[in-house]
Amino acid sequence: MEHDIRMLLEGVRTGAVSVDDAEAALRVKPFEDLGYANVDLHRQMRQGASEVIYGEGKTASQIAGIVRALQDAGQPRVLVTRLSAEKADAVKDAGIPLEYHELPRIGIVGGKPEPDAEGYLLVATAGTSDVPVAEEAALTAEMLGCSVRRAFDIGVAGLHRTLARMDDIMGARAIVAVAGMEGALASVIGGLAACPVIAVPTSVGYGASLGGVAALLSMLNSCASGVTVVNIDNGFGAAYAAAKILHQ
Amino acid sequence: MEHDIRMLLEGVRTGAVSVDDAEAALRVKPFEDLGYANVDLHRQMRQGASEVIYGEGKTASQIAGIVRALQDAGQPRVLVTRLSAEKADAVKDAGIPLEYHELPRIGIVGGKPEPDAEGYLLVATAGTSDVPVAEEAALTAEMLGCSVRRAFDIGVAGLHRTLARMDDIMGARAIVAVAGMEGALASVIGGLAACPVIAVPTSVGYGASLGGVAALLSMLNSCASGVTVVNIDNGFGAAYAAAKILHQ
Amino acid sequence: MEHDIRMLLEGVRTGAVSVDDAEAALRVKPFEDLGYANVDLHRQMRQGASEVIYGEGKTASQIAGIVRALQDAGQPRVLVTRLSAEKADAVKDAGIPLEYHELPRIGIVGGKPEPDAEGYLLVATAGTSDVPVAEEAALTAEMLGCSVRRAFDIGVAGLHRTLARMDDIMGARAIVAVAGMEGALASVIGGLAACPVIAVPTSVGYGASLGGVAALLSMLNSCASGVTVVNIDNGFGAAYAAAKILHQ
Amino acid sequence: MEHDIRMLLEGVRTGAVSVDDAEAALRVKPFEDLGYANVDLHRQMRQGASEVIYGEGKTASQIAGIVRALQDAGQPRVLVTRLSAEKADAVKDAGIPLEYHELPRIGIVGGKPEPDAEGYLLVATAGTSDVPVAEEAALTAEMLGCSVRRAFDIGVAGLHRTLARMDDIMGARAIVAVAGMEGALASVIGGLAACPVIAVPTSVGYGASLGGVAALLSMLNSCASGVTVVNIDNGFGAAYAAAKILHQ
Amino acid sequence: MEHDIRMLLEGVRTGAVSVDDAEAALRVKPFEDLGYANVDLHRQMRQGASEVIYGEGKTASQIAGIVRALQDAGQPRVLVTRLSAEKADAVKDAGIPLEYHELPRIGIVGGKPEPDAEGYLLVATAGTSDVPVAEEAALTAEMLGCSVRRAFDIGVAGLHRTLARMDDIMGARAIVAVAGMEGALASVIGGLAACPVIAVPTSVGYGASLGGVAALLSMLNSCASGVTVVNIDNGFGAAYAAAKILHQ
Amino acid sequence: MEHDIRMLLEGVRTGAVSVDDAEAALRVKPFEDLGYANVDLHRQMRQGASEVIYGEGKTASQIAGIVRALQDAGQPRVLVTRLSAEKADAVKDAGIPLEYHELPRIGIVGGKPEPDAEGYLLVATAGTSDVPVAEEAALTAEMLGCSVRRAFDIGVAGLHRTLARMDDIMGARAIVAVAGMEGALASVIGGLAACPVIAVPTSVGYGASLGGVAALLSMLNSCASGVTVVNIDNGFGAAYAAAKILHQ
Amino acid sequence: MEHDIRMLLEGVRTGAVSVDDAEAALRVKPFEDLGYANVDLHRQMRQGASEVIYGEGKTASQIAGIVRALQDAGQPRVLVTRLSAEKADAVKDAGIPLEYHELPRIGIVGGKPEPDAEGYLLVATAGTSDVPVAEEAALTAEMLGCSVRRAFDIGVAGLHRTLARMDDIMGARAIVAVAGMEGALASVIGGLAACPVIAVPTSVGYGASLGGVAALLSMLNSCASGVTVVNIDNGFGAAYAAAKILHQ
Amino acid sequence: MEHDIRMLLEGVRTGAVSVDDAEAALRVKPFEDLGYANVDLHRQMRQGASEVIYGEGKTASQIAGIVRALQDAGQPRVLVTRLSAEKADAVKDAGIPLEYHELPRIGIVGGKPEPDAEGYLLVATAGTSDVPVAEEAALTAEMLGCSVRRAFDIGVAGLHRTLARMDDIMGARAIVAVAGMEGALASVIGGLAACPVIAVPTSVGYGASLGGVAALLSMLNSCASGVTVVNIDNGFGAAYAAAKILHQ
Repeated sequence: MEHDIRMLLEGVRTGAVSVDDAEAALRVKPFEDLGYANVDLHRQMRQGASEVIYGEGKTASQIAGIVRALQDAGQPRVLVTRLSAEKADAVKDAGIPLEYHELPRIGIVGGKPEPDAEGYLLVATAGTSDVPVAEEAALTAEMLGCSVRRAFDIGVAGLHRTLARMDDIMGARAIVAVAGMEGALASVIGGLAACPVIAVPTSVGYGASLGGVAALLSMLNSCASGVTVVNIDNGFGAAYAAAKILHQ
Repeated sequence: MEHDIRMLLEGVRTGAVSVDDAEAALRVKPFEDLGYANVDLHRQMRQGASEVIYGEGKTASQIAGIVRALQDAGQPRVLVTRLSAEKADAVKDAGIPLEYHELPRIGIVGGKPEPDAEGYLLVATAGTSDVPVAEEAALTAEMLGCSVRRAFDIGVAGLHRTLARMDDIMGARAIVAVAGMEGALASVIGGLAACPVIAVPTSVGYGASLGGVAALLSMLNSCASGVTVVNIDNGFGAAYAAAKILHQ
Repeated sequence: MEHDIRMLLEGVRTGAVSVDDAEAALRVKPFEDLGYANVDLHRQMRQGASEVIYGEGKTASQIAGIVRALQDAGQPRVLVTRLSAEKADAVKDAGIPLEYHELPRIGIVGGKPEPDAEGYLLVATAGTSDVPVAEEAALTAEMLGCSVRRAFDIGVAGLHRTLARMDDIMGARAIVAVAGMEGALASVIGGLAACPVIAVPTSVGYGASLGGVAALLSMLNSCASGVTVVNIDNGFGAAYAAAKILHQ
Repeated sequence: MEHDIRMLLEGVRTGAVSVDDAEAALRVKPFEDLGYANVDLHRQMRQGASEVIYGEGKTASQIAGIVRALQDAGQPRVLVTRLSAEKADAVKDAGIPLEYHELPRIGIVGGKPEPDAEGYLLVATAGTSDVPVAEEAALTAEMLGCSVRRAFDIGVAGLHRTLARMDDIMGARAIVAVAGMEGALASVIGGLAACPVIAVPTSVGYGASLGGVAALLSMLNSCASGVTVVNIDNGFGAAYAAAKILHQ
Repeated sequence: MEHDIRMLLEGVRTGAVSVDDAEAALRVKPFEDLGYANVDLHRQMRQGASEVIYGEGKTASQIAGIVRALQDAGQPRVLVTRLSAEKADAVKDAGIPLEYHELPRIGIVGGKPEPDAEGYLLVATAGTSDVPVAEEAALTAEMLGCSVRRAFDIGVAGLHRTLARMDDIMGARAIVAVAGMEGALASVIGGLAACPVIAVPTSVGYGASLGGVAALLSMLNSCASGVTVVNIDNGFGAAYAAAKILHQ
Repeated sequence: MEHDIRMLLEGVRTGAVSVDDAEAALRVKPFEDLGYANVDLHRQMRQGASEVIYGEGKTASQIAGIVRALQDAGQPRVLVTRLSAEKADAVKDAGIPLEYHELPRIGIVGGKPEPDAEGYLLVATAGTSDVPVAEEAALTAEMLGCSVRRAFDIGVAGLHRTLARMDDIMGARAIVAVAGMEGALASVIGGLAACPVIAVPTSVGYGASLGGVAALLSMLNSCASGVTVVNIDNGFGAAYAAAKILHQ
Repeated sequence: MEHDIRMLLEGVRTGAVSVDDAEAALRVKPFEDLGYANVDLHRQMRQGASEVIYGEGKTASQIAGIVRALQDAGQPRVLVTRLSAEKADAVKDAGIPLEYHELPRIGIVGGKPEPDAEGYLLVATAGTSDVPVAEEAALTAEMLGCSVRRAFDIGVAGLHRTLARMDDIMGARAIVAVAGMEGALASVIGGLAACPVIAVPTSVGYGASLGGVAALLSMLNSCASGVTVVNIDNGFGAAYAAAKILHQ
Repeated sequence: MEHDIRMLLEGVRTGAVSVDDAEAALRVKPFEDLGYANVDLHRQMRQGASEVIYGEGKTASQIAGIVRALQDAGQPRVLVTRLSAEKADAVKDAGIPLEYHELPRIGIVGGKPEPDAEGYLLVATAGTSDVPVAEEAALTAEMLGCSVRRAFDIGVAGLHRTLARMDDIMGARAIVAVAGMEGALASVIGGLAACPVIAVPTSVGYGASLGGVAALLSMLNSCASGVTVVNIDNGFGAAYAAAKILHQ
């Protein structure tokens, strides 16, 4: 943005740009208004990430429209999260070549890129039921250019299962720890790992799990220093943050 | 109670007891009404435990009065919980030979009994700040005739500290796991131990620990099967339950 | 584990075991990784319990796979909890000889074992609606080798119904008290019984019962000393803890 | 109010009252504006009760002012609730002949009236710590013309203590059941009594009692039909409702 | 119960009753155990009310079974609450002559009794959506022998609608005030009425109404003295309490 | 109302109105009781607004009945909110010429009026998923005579999108800011705008958004002075308040 | 800001402003950084309001420093909210001529301005305890150029007190309704008034008032259309919003 | 740990280490048990960080003891968080050369190290009251070898203040965004920055801020992708996580 302003002002000074145009330009926003959505066409540049579409609450035709606008603007790869199987079919029917992953309810356009970040991200889960959220994280990270290792069902009630993945834990550049119920996995991994650990509480559980709030509170209060937390079931957000770390 | 009723009815049948007396007796309660409190004089018999006075919300003279009533009824040992140092002094001034433990705010009358239960109770804490609650549990259990081992500051963020006490964990007949913050200690011990594990959430923590609610929820949702939970900071209750188990 | 390590080291000392093998062995975990789950093959040894599969969030074929892995490892009896009728049919169709209990949504493979613990566990409920949770507890306990007595619909609003089961309450080695709404049954039984009482709040109720939170809080605050609590509707957890007590 | 309107309109019709005066009168309110408070001078008439001053958040001189306004309007008896000892002294210093009750923090002006309602109100508590709230209820009811019996420390953890007061429970015209912790007393009494039962949760307890919310929820979910509930620690409100019932 | 015990003891004294029989009788409970439910056959006597069956969580055949047990015990009138239309049909198919009220989801067996209490109960609602809960209250009260007046949709946002029913408010012997959203109706009526007011919060509303919790809290904090409250949507409970008041 | 009373009293004075009639008139309420609803026929006069029907919890025939009563009373324009598509069809079938808007679930009878207020209302949303609530607000405001501008999907995570609508923000007479998730849009707009800003939290989000409570709390705690808030998803309420402001 | 940019660009075009200077200017912010605070020197211009200092969490010398910075920038009138008496004294000692209002804990520098808005703001309270918050609102509004009428202690439990201020309610251009407990005042006034009503919940109450949350929820769910709400005890925010409305 | 095991086993193989010693060594933990605390002497090695002492809930002599144990083990630099001024004095009196920072309540032993990580960490706050938490973060990061820039009081209600620090935001390698109230700063910065953003909610605010829960929920629901969150007021935790990122 810095450069844009300066270049514009130089243009005004030399007369190459009129005051009216310059004022307009200073107001121009790098997005396209589709009526129902303002599609950000510069984010890749500005934040170093592929575009992501949050599929929930958007119709298939809206999703298809946004994908097209992005592709027209030169972004070949698009990730669509929280996409139901039905909606995915409709998006495909609208002519978008979508690769659909049912468990994490994710659609991918343009395929996964080659990893361009050093090291790997470890995505771990406490139980089998946490896998859908973990896969959302893993696929997102892969779409953002990360290499990913998976360590599923290694919850601390069977501590030997956790410790069996010690090597993966010690070698990771970042870890996404996914757990529902009491979320203790985050604390144990947080105490073992040298790298940043991002905890994802899941809504797995019942009764006093309060839809994931118990795991969320548990992770926020982790006795392991430096564990950070994202919203319940937010595998995408954890991976997005992790990808920033791996690309540092 | 079974026997009492039968004996009474036999008395009525034989004429040894009048109907009026029997009716009265059937209504007689095995407690003494001090006005401000109904002191239970038969609990030792009925539940196999020493009498306990919950000190909070009682004046020193009320406490002294109850102790005396109990001693008059033949109960030499009394445990007073949640007793402030000031109130303890006042109880002593009232002539009660009280031994005061400041950290767990407990007063003991009549000294600790010899352990009469098999095996030992392990009282473990995640951190140093959980020790007062743990000591409330440990002293209570000792007053109820248990042998107690302490394992303090063995929280899972330093897993090697937890595992260092593996022998004590594996050998216990019951474990009271005391932890604030995210309370993960209960899950890890619950996964390791073969004996019953009673978890005590503590109010140690800040912010989203919500005064111990985070640890409480965590423990209730423990992924380790068979962990049971008591109220926040309720070291006494955990020990009481554990003592029942050790005396089985 | 103690013995394993020692035997291994002796092997190294005598040359019977190479350093590489010993290191590997020290890392070997006693579980089988099915991809979607790490099946614990040693738990029976380590914790004295049959294997349990939490059916929620697992597909029928995953459940069947785990059952087979367990049976291959020599565990004839498996308990599957939170199993819907549809999934139970699918598990049977996959060739697993499952005995299905609809009310508590439990599947049993290999039949109930003979009780091998002294005394009996009393499972009590406040109302008729609490029975499914109570049956989950009762069947679990039976699968874990306990003898069980049932006392259903004895809530304290009709105190004579509670007192009518006085004998069963007084004679039990442990009691699981199941109640929704205000959960007062736990306090009344807790005050009467000499044995450990484990309270199970249920989600029975409406409005301010908040899905069982009212009963949960009530039980955590029980005025009866030594009542411990498990998660809402967690009949399994209560029975698991009770079975540990009965097997002491 | 019915009569007032009619009399006024008759006056207008006969010319005894001008339209302007009538309009004004129709707007006149039966209270005195002291600046800081609108003192209701007609409530005794309208609702059949003595005036009550909620002492919290009012200065001693404001309280004294309201008492005087009420006495000037012919109301000899005034009840001041939630009145600290310091403020009570200041009110006395301001020349108001106040009789102060420290435990329930109540001030009484003009003494208690003779009971004018049939039967008696039973005020029961679960524990000793609930007595201050219970005394607020008892004194309020007495000030409102009720005869009151007290049954303190009869909580259900010692059921024989509860049952010992069976006669008082069965004979009451209304019962105020005061309990903190899990508030089970309300359900047990609610199941035994034929008369209306008003439950008062107290803030007695700690941890997951959440300042009385646990008892409140418990009482709202009582399995005993027809128990109604007031705010936490609101002994006054329960007595006010009970007095209405006794005066029916 | 008083009399029963005395008569029994007299029988023992005179030899008319053996000790064994007396002991058994003292244990006999006035209910019938249907396996799934303990049907209370003496409640009518003990509490002056018809028997009520809470339909939720019971099967149609269980409900039919309980109705028959009650009728066999001489109770002609039975009220079944929280009964879905489908289940009502099934109960009828099972041969029970049930009169079904769809809005309040209530089934009545044996018809409404003649009112046997003095005065009338006013059942008021704030809005149209509160009517189902109000009708549950009104029908329950009628089944319990009360005369009922209805005043629906008189919420305080249109204060003239509230005041239009001033006569009904002033003349009632008890009022059940039913309101969702902010529940202010209870406070306004509570300030106007001389009789006891029982507030029923409803789950009507959205967002921050939190399923009726907003109305519940509002009513518990009513600035009008002596308003008592029941659980959210608990029209039955309010009517039960009101019926006790009207029958005093 | 002022005038009504005065005119009535003048009538009484001159004898044109009898006392009985005057008393009755003073009690007459300006609404029609349809049995299930008290339709307010004077609100337009009293509050300067068209009549609104809250469609939720009313049957199609009730809605049709209220519309007819309003039209008979001379109110041509009616807004029906929270109206499902099915119910809308049924209302049309009942002969009411309803114009239905599916996204905001609104029905309009009598068409939109010409704007009669100065300036315009800006309705802004953070995301695409907030549009239904925003449209409820926009249509409501238009029905109440406001000119409306829409600025959708301008959330602060893409700040340039927000700033692109700076002119619309600076020029508005009132702003309704609609946002779910963390609701930060309200604070940013609140800091920029000179006019009143009304924030509408939406239930858009998941996990710790707690059904819109996160956005609600966020908006209530806005660091921007003078932002006021309505209930979650309450586009109608925000527009109603805004229309009052624009008509000042 | 619009004009600033245009003027600047014109300067660049004519050469009167260098590109460097223009770029710098476009970055210049209209505030002064005091190290501990960024004092906004242009807000008066931008939002038409005097500067306000939130006193909580600032030292007396910080407050004095900000006041001086503002006065140096030509803003004679400053309002300091949430200012304790001690801190007010210290600010005065630092040489700032502060006029302190103890009840609402407000400090005023430069005196109140003449009202410059049409009509008046009505500030109403339910009770006497709500007055401090109401005074914060009233003083704030007066500092922002509004004429204010006060109507205190007119809560709906004494509806005649509310109706006695009917004229003030009907004539206001905006109303700030301040109430704790159940906050019903907002709904009743909201139903009566034609002008915008801003509700301020207060923390007045106890127990289930949850520190004002009950009143907050009540007001958010008001059945009166168009009531908007601010944070608990936020008299300042309500007045700020009201002042915007009065200055439209 | 990997190496330790291997080296040990080699020792056993060669006979240099006896089986008994090896078994003991495999159990040796790299910490020192001071009775009240298990001081971790290897963490610096294992996780690359200086040792940190959480001062809350430890006595001055305990803190001094831990510092000494660490220094004896060769760790010259120690950070003590949540340390009151009084306790700091006592630690100094115990002979520990502590440098105390009052605002963030932090004690430093051994001085700050030279920054050893690339780039800088930006610590930003919304308001002046958030500075103590921000300083805790800043000092912690500096103690962990990070270079830190501070940007305080740049909350989004004055968006120009936020944008004025655009350069610092764009250039950072990680950002810690500290905000109370509605916490919107995290979303705005999260949308602008390319680096990882860690949000710290603070307990700054009142009423519905619920002690920081509002800001916490807001941040967890941030519409800006990839913002991660720590516990309320947990400046230390945020800095610890950030330091891990900067040292990648």
